[in-house]
Amino acid sequence: MPKYYRILGEASVRGLKKISSQEISALLGLTASQVRQDLSHFGGFGQQGYGYDTEVLLSEIRKILGLTREFSVIIVGAGKIGNALAAYRGFAADGFIVKAMFDKEPNPAGNVLGIASLEEYLAKNPTDIAVIAVEKSEAEAVAKRLAAAGVKNFWNFAPIDLCIPGTVAENVNMSESLFRLSYRACEFQENKNQGE
Amino acid sequence: MPKYYRILGEASVRGLKKISSQEISALLGLTASQVRQDLSHFGGFGQQGYGYDTEVLLSEIRKILGLTREFSVIIVGAGKIGNALAAYRGFAADGFIVKAMFDKEPNPAGNVLGIASLEEYLAKNPTDIAVIAVEKSEAEAVAKRLAAAGVKNFWNFAPIDLCIPGTVAENVNMSESLFRLSYRACEFQENKNQGE
Repeated sequence: MPKYYRILGEASVRGLKKISSQEISALLGLTASQVRQDLSHFGGFGQQGYGYDTEVLLSEIRKILGLTREFSVIIVGAGKIGNALAAYRGFAADGFIVKAMFDKEPNPAGNVLGIASLEEYLAKNPTDIAVIAVEKSEAEAVAKRLAAAGVKNFWNFAPIDLCIPGTVAENVNMSESLFRLSYRACEFQENKNQGE
Repeated sequence: MPKYYRILGEASVRGLKKISSQEISALLGLTASQVRQDLSHFGGFGQQGYGYDTEVLLSEIRKILGLTREFSVIIVGAGKIGNALAAYRGFAADGFIVKAMFDKEPNPAGNVLGIASLEEYLAKNPTDIAVIAVEKSEAEAVAKRLAAAGVKNFWNFAPIDLCIPGTVAENVNMSESLFRLSYRACEFQENKNQGE
Protein backbone atom coordinates (compact mmCIF):
# COMPACT_ATOMS: atom_id res chain seq x y z
CA MET A 1 0.00 0.00 0.00
CA PRO A 2 2.76 2.55 0.77
CA LYS A 3 4.13 1.97 -2.74
CA TYR A 4 0.68 2.42 -4.29
CA TYR A 5 0.34 5.64 -2.32
CA ARG A 6 3.63 6.97 -3.65
CA ILE A 7 3.06 6.21 -7.33
CA LEU A 8 -0.53 7.46 -7.24
CA GLY A 9 0.66 10.65 -5.52
CA GLU A 10 3.14 11.12 -8.36
CA ALA A 11 0.43 10.45 -10.98
CA SER A 12 -1.77 13.03 -9.28
CA VAL A 13 1.04 15.62 -9.33
CA ARG A 14 1.49 14.90 -13.05
CA GLY A 15 -2.21 15.71 -13.51
CA LEU A 16 -3.26 12.17 -14.48
CA LYS A 17 -7.04 11.96 -13.87
CA LYS A 18 -7.42 8.25 -14.71
CA ILE A 19 -4.97 5.43 -14.26
CA SER A 20 -5.32 1.82 -15.44
CA SER A 21 -4.21 -1.29 -13.59
CA GLN A 22 -1.70 -1.79 -16.46
CA GLU A 23 -0.15 1.61 -15.82
CA ILE A 24 -0.02 1.02 -12.05
CA SER A 25 1.48 -2.44 -12.55
CA ALA A 26 4.19 -1.09 -14.88
CA LEU A 27 5.16 1.56 -12.29
CA LEU A 28 5.23 -0.99 -9.46
CA GLY A 29 6.81 -3.90 -11.32
CA LEU A 30 3.81 -6.14 -10.59
CA THR A 31 1.37 -7.89 -12.92
CA ALA A 32 -1.89 -6.07 -13.73
CA SER A 33 -3.89 -8.94 -12.23
CA GLN A 34 -1.92 -8.63 -8.98
CA VAL A 35 -2.77 -4.91 -8.90
CA ARG A 36 -6.47 -5.59 -9.52
CA GLN A 37 -6.45 -8.20 -6.78
CA ASP A 38 -4.68 -5.89 -4.28
CA LEU A 39 -7.12 -3.08 -4.91
CA SER A 40 -10.21 -5.32 -4.90
CA HIS A 41 -9.46 -6.16 -1.24
CA PHE A 42 -10.38 -2.61 -0.39
CA GLY A 43 -13.63 -2.43 -2.34
CA GLY A 44 -13.89 -2.18 -6.13
CA PHE A 45 -12.72 1.32 -6.95
CA GLY A 46 -12.11 0.55 -10.62
CA GLN A 47 -14.43 0.16 -13.58
CA GLN A 48 -13.80 -2.36 -16.36
CA GLY A 49 -12.17 -0.75 -19.39
CA TYR A 50 -12.08 2.64 -17.71
CA GLY A 51 -9.39 2.42 -15.07
CA TYR A 52 -9.26 4.09 -11.72
CA ASP A 53 -10.01 7.68 -10.82
CA THR A 54 -6.60 8.77 -9.51
CA GLU A 55 -7.91 11.13 -6.81
CA VAL A 56 -10.55 8.68 -5.53
CA LEU A 57 -8.04 5.85 -5.33
CA LEU A 58 -5.45 8.11 -3.67
CA SER A 59 -7.92 9.26 -1.07
CA GLU A 60 -9.03 5.67 -0.33
CA ILE A 61 -5.43 4.54 0.10
CA ARG A 62 -4.75 7.54 2.30
CA LYS A 63 -7.60 6.37 4.55
CA ILE A 64 -6.29 2.79 4.60
CA LEU A 65 -2.81 4.02 5.57
CA GLY A 66 -4.23 6.18 8.33
CA LEU A 67 -2.97 9.36 6.65
CA THR A 68 -6.19 11.34 6.99
CA ARG A 69 -5.32 12.32 10.54
CA GLU A 70 -2.34 13.82 12.34
CA PHE A 71 0.05 11.71 14.38
CA SER A 72 1.96 13.27 17.26
CA VAL A 73 5.54 12.07 17.25
CA ILE A 74 8.42 12.30 19.71
CA ILE A 75 12.04 11.41 18.96
CA VAL A 76 14.08 9.74 21.69
CA GLY A 77 17.81 10.11 21.10
CA ALA A 78 19.29 13.33 19.76
CA GLY A 79 22.27 11.81 17.96
CA LYS A 80 22.83 11.95 14.20
CA ILE A 81 19.84 9.76 13.29
CA GLY A 82 17.47 11.57 15.66
CA ASN A 83 18.54 14.93 14.32
CA ALA A 84 18.38 13.84 10.68
CA LEU A 85 14.79 12.66 11.21
CA ALA A 86 13.86 15.81 13.12
CA ALA A 87 15.14 17.95 10.27
CA TYR A 88 13.34 16.04 7.51
CA ARG A 89 10.38 18.14 6.36
CA GLY A 90 8.63 15.45 4.34
CA PHE A 91 6.99 13.73 7.30
CA ALA A 92 4.99 16.77 8.42
CA ALA A 93 3.37 16.96 4.98
CA ASP A 94 1.93 13.48 5.58
CA GLY A 95 0.64 14.37 9.03
CA PHE A 96 3.50 13.13 11.20
CA ILE A 97 4.23 16.07 13.51
CA VAL A 98 7.37 15.96 15.67
CA LYS A 99 6.38 17.55 18.96
CA ALA A 100 9.44 16.96 21.13
CA MET A 101 12.88 15.39 21.24
CA PHE A 102 14.51 13.72 24.25
CA ASP A 103 18.07 12.78 25.13
CA LYS A 104 20.18 11.83 28.13
CA GLU A 105 21.80 15.22 27.66
CA PRO A 106 19.11 17.88 27.44
CA ASN A 107 19.85 20.88 25.26
CA PRO A 108 17.36 23.71 25.80
CA ALA A 109 18.85 25.70 22.89
CA GLY A 110 18.15 22.80 20.50
CA ASN A 111 14.72 22.00 21.98
CA VAL A 112 16.00 18.72 23.38
CA LEU A 113 14.38 17.71 26.69
CA GLY A 114 16.03 15.50 29.30
CA ILE A 115 14.96 11.87 29.15
CA ALA A 116 14.21 12.02 32.89
CA SER A 117 11.17 14.16 32.04
CA LEU A 118 9.76 11.60 29.55
CA GLU A 119 6.93 10.33 31.78
CA GLU A 120 6.01 13.83 32.90
CA TYR A 121 5.81 15.00 29.27
CA LEU A 122 3.74 11.99 28.12
CA ALA A 123 1.25 12.40 30.97
CA LYS A 124 0.50 15.89 29.66
CA ASN A 125 0.98 15.19 25.92
CA PRO A 126 -0.49 11.92 24.65
CA THR A 127 1.78 10.76 21.83
CA ASP A 128 1.02 8.41 18.93
CA ILE A 129 4.49 7.44 17.74
CA ALA A 130 7.92 7.38 19.37
CA VAL A 131 11.02 7.27 17.20
CA ILE A 132 13.67 5.17 18.94
CA ALA A 133 17.05 6.62 17.98
CA VAL A 134 19.11 5.66 21.02
CA GLU A 135 22.01 3.20 21.32
CA LYS A 136 21.20 -0.48 20.90
CA SER A 137 21.90 -1.21 24.58
CA GLU A 138 19.30 1.35 25.68
CA ALA A 139 16.58 0.76 23.09
CA GLU A 140 14.53 -1.91 24.82
CA ALA A 141 14.51 -0.16 28.21
CA VAL A 142 13.48 3.13 26.58
CA ALA A 143 10.70 1.42 24.62
CA LYS A 144 9.38 -0.23 27.78
CA ARG A 145 9.30 3.14 29.58
CA LEU A 146 7.45 4.64 26.61
CA ALA A 147 4.97 1.73 26.48
CA ALA A 148 4.30 2.02 30.22
CA ALA A 149 3.61 5.73 29.68
CA GLY A 150 1.06 4.97 26.96
CA VAL A 151 2.98 5.11 23.66
CA LYS A 152 1.82 2.23 21.46
CA ASN A 153 3.75 2.71 18.22
CA PHE A 154 7.49 2.63 17.69
CA TRP A 155 9.61 3.57 14.70
CA ASN A 156 12.78 1.86 15.80
CA PHE A 157 16.24 2.66 14.40
CA ALA A 158 18.23 0.70 16.99
CA PRO A 159 19.58 -2.58 15.54
CA ILE A 160 17.30 -4.87 17.56
CA ASP A 161 13.80 -6.13 16.77
CA LEU A 162 11.56 -4.46 19.35
CA CYS A 163 8.77 -6.74 20.40
CA ILE A 164 6.80 -5.32 23.32
CA PRO A 165 3.33 -6.78 24.01
CA GLY A 166 0.48 -4.42 23.19
CA THR A 167 2.60 -2.24 20.89
CA VAL A 168 3.41 -2.05 17.17
CA ALA A 169 7.01 -1.58 16.02
CA GLU A 170 8.43 -0.84 12.60
CA ASN A 171 12.07 -1.84 12.87
CA VAL A 172 14.41 -0.07 10.45
CA ASN A 173 17.68 -1.93 10.49
CA MET A 174 20.29 -0.02 8.49
CA SER A 175 23.00 -2.67 8.75
CA GLU A 176 20.65 -5.36 7.46
CA SER A 177 19.76 -3.16 4.52
CA LEU A 178 23.45 -2.69 3.74
CA PHE A 179 24.08 -6.47 4.03
CA ARG A 180 21.21 -7.10 1.58
CA LEU A 181 23.04 -4.84 -0.85
CA SER A 182 26.41 -6.58 -0.44
CA TYR A 183 24.68 -9.99 -0.72
CA ARG A 184 22.93 -8.96 -3.94
CA ALA A 185 26.11 -7.31 -5.24
CA CYS A 186 27.99 -10.60 -4.78
CA GLU A 187 25.22 -12.66 -6.45
CA PHE A 188 25.15 -10.17 -9.32
CA GLN A 189 28.91 -10.41 -9.78
CA GLU A 190 28.75 -14.23 -9.76
CA ASN A 191 25.95 -14.35 -12.32
CA LYS A 192 27.89 -11.92 -14.49
CA ASN A 193 31.03 -14.02 -14.25
CA GLN A 194 29.08 -17.16 -15.19
CA GLY A 195 27.48 -15.34 -18.11
CA GLU A 196 30.77 -14.20 -19.58
CA MET B 1 20.56 -14.03 5.80
CA PRO B 2 21.27 -10.57 7.30
CA LYS B 3 19.05 -11.49 10.26
CA TYR B 4 20.86 -14.81 10.71
CA TYR B 5 24.12 -12.92 10.66
CA ARG B 6 22.98 -10.54 13.38
CA ILE B 7 21.63 -13.13 15.80
CA LEU B 8 24.61 -15.45 15.29
CA GLY B 9 26.96 -12.50 15.88
CA GLU B 10 25.13 -11.84 19.15
CA ALA B 11 25.32 -15.54 20.12
CA SER B 12 29.06 -15.48 19.41
CA VAL B 13 29.53 -12.38 21.59
CA ARG B 14 27.63 -14.17 24.39
CA GLY B 15 30.18 -17.02 24.09
CA LEU B 16 27.71 -19.60 22.74
CA LYS B 17 29.78 -22.30 20.99
CA LYS B 18 26.83 -24.35 19.69
CA ILE B 19 23.40 -23.25 18.60
CA SER B 20 20.44 -25.44 17.64
CA SER B 21 17.94 -24.73 14.88
CA GLN B 22 15.33 -24.43 17.69
CA GLU B 23 17.33 -21.66 19.35
CA ILE B 24 17.89 -19.85 16.06
CA SER B 25 14.21 -20.17 15.15
CA ALA B 26 13.10 -18.75 18.53
CA LEU B 27 15.39 -15.73 18.07
CA LEU B 28 14.17 -15.14 14.50
CA GLY B 29 10.49 -15.92 15.01
CA LEU B 30 10.61 -18.69 12.37
CA THR B 31 9.91 -22.42 12.65
CA ALA B 32 12.88 -24.71 13.25
CA SER B 33 12.19 -26.54 10.00
CA GLN B 34 12.30 -23.22 8.08
CA VAL B 35 15.70 -22.50 9.67
CA ARG B 36 17.02 -25.97 8.74
CA GLN B 37 15.76 -25.48 5.19
CA ASP B 38 17.30 -21.99 4.88
CA LEU B 39 20.67 -23.18 6.09
CA SER B 40 20.61 -26.39 4.02
CA HIS B 41 20.60 -24.24 0.86
CA PHE B 42 24.13 -23.22 1.71
CA GLY B 43 25.50 -26.69 2.41
CA GLY B 44 24.74 -28.77 5.50
CA PHE B 45 26.60 -27.02 8.30
CA GLY B 46 24.61 -28.72 11.06
CA GLN B 47 24.70 -32.20 12.58
CA GLN B 48 21.58 -34.04 13.71
CA GLY B 49 21.03 -33.73 17.45
CA TYR B 50 24.12 -31.56 17.87
CA GLY B 51 23.25 -28.17 16.42
CA TYR B 52 25.47 -25.77 14.57
CA ASP B 53 28.94 -24.61 15.50
CA THR B 54 28.32 -20.89 16.00
CA GLU B 55 31.65 -19.70 14.63
CA VAL B 56 31.59 -21.99 11.57
CA LEU B 57 28.04 -20.93 10.72
CA LEU B 58 28.85 -17.25 11.28
CA SER B 59 31.87 -17.43 9.03
CA GLU B 60 29.88 -19.23 6.29
CA ILE B 61 27.14 -16.59 6.42
CA ARG B 62 29.77 -13.86 6.38
CA LYS B 63 31.07 -15.38 3.13
CA ILE B 64 27.57 -15.61 1.65
CA LEU B 65 26.89 -11.96 2.52
CA GLY B 66 30.17 -10.86 0.98
CA LEU B 67 31.46 -9.61 4.32
CA THR B 68 34.88 -11.25 4.12
CA ARG B 69 36.21 -8.39 2.01
CA GLU B 70 36.25 -4.62 2.20
CA PHE B 71 33.89 -2.47 0.17
CA SER B 72 34.91 1.04 -0.79
CA VAL B 73 32.00 3.42 -0.35
CA ILE B 74 31.32 7.01 -1.38
CA ILE B 75 28.41 9.13 -0.17
CA VAL B 76 26.78 11.52 -2.63
CA GLY B 77 24.82 14.26 -0.88
CA ALA B 78 26.15 15.91 2.29
CA GLY B 79 22.79 16.76 3.84
CA LYS B 80 21.48 15.36 7.11
CA ILE B 81 21.16 11.77 5.85
CA GLY B 82 24.55 11.76 4.16
CA ASN B 83 26.22 13.13 7.27
CA ALA B 84 24.37 10.75 9.61
CA LEU B 85 25.58 7.80 7.52
CA ALA B 86 29.12 9.17 7.31
CA ALA B 87 29.24 9.49 11.11
CA TYR B 88 27.92 5.99 11.82
CA ARG B 89 30.84 3.85 12.97
CA GLY B 90 29.14 0.46 12.71
CA PHE B 91 29.56 0.08 8.94
CA ALA B 92 33.37 0.17 9.01
CA ALA B 93 33.41 -2.77 11.44
CA ASP B 94 31.66 -4.84 8.74
CA GLY B 95 34.07 -3.78 6.02
CA PHE B 96 32.16 -0.87 4.46
CA ILE B 97 34.73 1.93 4.33
CA VAL B 98 33.56 5.44 3.44
CA LYS B 99 36.32 6.92 1.29
CA ALA B 100 34.80 10.21 0.14
CA MET B 101 31.71 12.39 0.24
CA PHE B 102 30.39 14.59 -2.56
CA ASP B 103 27.96 17.48 -2.70
CA LYS B 104 26.93 20.31 -5.00
CA GLU B 105 28.54 22.56 -2.42
CA PRO B 106 32.03 21.31 -1.68
CA ASN B 107 33.34 21.85 1.84
CA PRO B 108 37.07 21.19 2.10
CA ALA B 109 36.97 21.59 5.90
CA GLY B 110 34.38 18.78 6.17
CA ASN B 111 36.07 16.56 3.55
CA VAL B 112 33.21 17.11 1.12
CA LEU B 113 34.29 17.16 -2.53
CA GLY B 114 32.44 18.97 -5.30
CA ILE B 115 30.15 16.77 -7.34
CA ALA B 116 31.76 18.12 -10.51
CA SER B 117 34.85 16.09 -9.61
CA LEU B 118 32.91 12.79 -9.31
CA GLU B 119 34.14 11.26 -12.58
CA GLU B 120 37.72 12.36 -11.98
CA TYR B 121 37.66 10.80 -8.51
CA LEU B 122 36.10 7.52 -9.71
CA ALA B 123 38.63 7.15 -12.54
CA LYS B 124 41.39 7.15 -9.91
CA ASN B 125 39.47 5.39 -7.10
CA PRO B 126 37.36 2.41 -8.17
CA THR B 127 34.38 2.35 -5.82
CA ASP B 128 32.12 -0.58 -4.91
CA ILE B 129 29.11 1.18 -3.43
CA ALA B 130 27.65 4.67 -3.77
CA VAL B 131 25.21 5.95 -1.16
CA ILE B 132 22.62 8.16 -2.87
CA ALA B 133 21.61 10.82 -0.35
CA VAL B 134 20.61 13.64 -2.71
CA GLU B 135 17.19 15.17 -3.34
CA LYS B 136 14.63 13.00 -5.12
CA SER B 137 14.76 15.15 -8.27
CA GLU B 138 18.51 14.60 -8.62
CA ALA B 139 18.79 10.95 -7.62
CA GLU B 140 18.35 9.26 -10.98
CA ALA B 141 20.71 11.58 -12.83
CA VAL B 142 23.37 11.15 -10.14
CA ALA B 143 22.99 7.35 -10.23
CA LYS B 144 23.36 7.34 -14.02
CA ARG B 145 26.56 9.39 -13.78
CA LEU B 146 27.86 6.98 -11.16
CA ALA B 147 26.94 3.93 -13.25
CA ALA B 148 28.62 5.42 -16.32
CA ALA B 149 31.74 5.94 -14.21
CA GLY B 150 31.76 2.28 -13.13
CA VAL B 151 29.85 2.17 -9.83
CA LYS B 152 27.59 -0.88 -9.86
CA ASN B 153 25.95 -0.87 -6.43
CA PHE B 154 23.68 1.78 -4.96
CA TRP B 155 22.38 2.24 -1.44
CA ASN B 156 19.61 4.65 -2.26
CA PHE B 157 17.93 6.93 0.29
CA ALA B 158 16.05 9.10 -2.22
CA PRO B 159 12.32 8.24 -2.34
CA ILE B 160 12.39 6.65 -5.80
CA ASP B 161 13.11 3.05 -6.80
CA LEU B 162 16.38 3.23 -8.70
CA CYS B 163 16.46 0.76 -11.52
CA ILE B 164 19.49 1.22 -13.74
CA PRO B 165 20.46 -1.67 -16.05
CA GLY B 166 23.63 -3.47 -15.02
CA THR B 167 23.49 -2.20 -11.45
CA VAL B 168 22.11 -3.37 -8.11
CA ALA B 169 20.16 -0.99 -5.88
CA GLU B 170 18.96 -1.35 -2.32
CA ASN B 171 16.26 1.29 -1.98
CA VAL B 172 15.66 2.52 1.57
CA ASN B 173 12.43 4.45 1.56
CA MET B 174 11.92 6.16 4.90
CA SER B 175 8.43 7.46 4.16
CA GLU B 176 7.22 4.00 3.13
CA SER B 177 8.58 2.60 6.37
CA LEU B 178 6.70 5.26 8.33
CA PHE B 179 3.48 4.54 6.37
CA ARG B 180 3.84 0.84 7.17
CA LEU B 181 3.90 1.84 10.82
CA SER B 182 0.80 4.05 10.60
CA TYR B 183 -1.01 1.34 8.58
CA ARG B 184 -0.20 -1.30 11.20
CA ALA B 185 -1.02 1.12 14.02
CA CYS B 186 -4.51 1.66 12.52
CA GLU B 187 -5.07 -2.09 12.00
CA PHE B 188 -3.94 -2.72 15.58
CA GLN B 189 -6.32 -0.10 16.93
CA GLU B 190 -9.22 -1.54 14.92
CA ASN B 191 -8.57 -5.10 16.10
CA LYS B 192 -8.39 -3.84 19.68
CA ASN B 193 -11.67 -1.97 19.33
CA GLN B 194 -13.33 -5.07 17.87
CA GLY B 195 -11.92 -7.18 20.70
CA GLU B 196 -13.32 -4.93 23.43
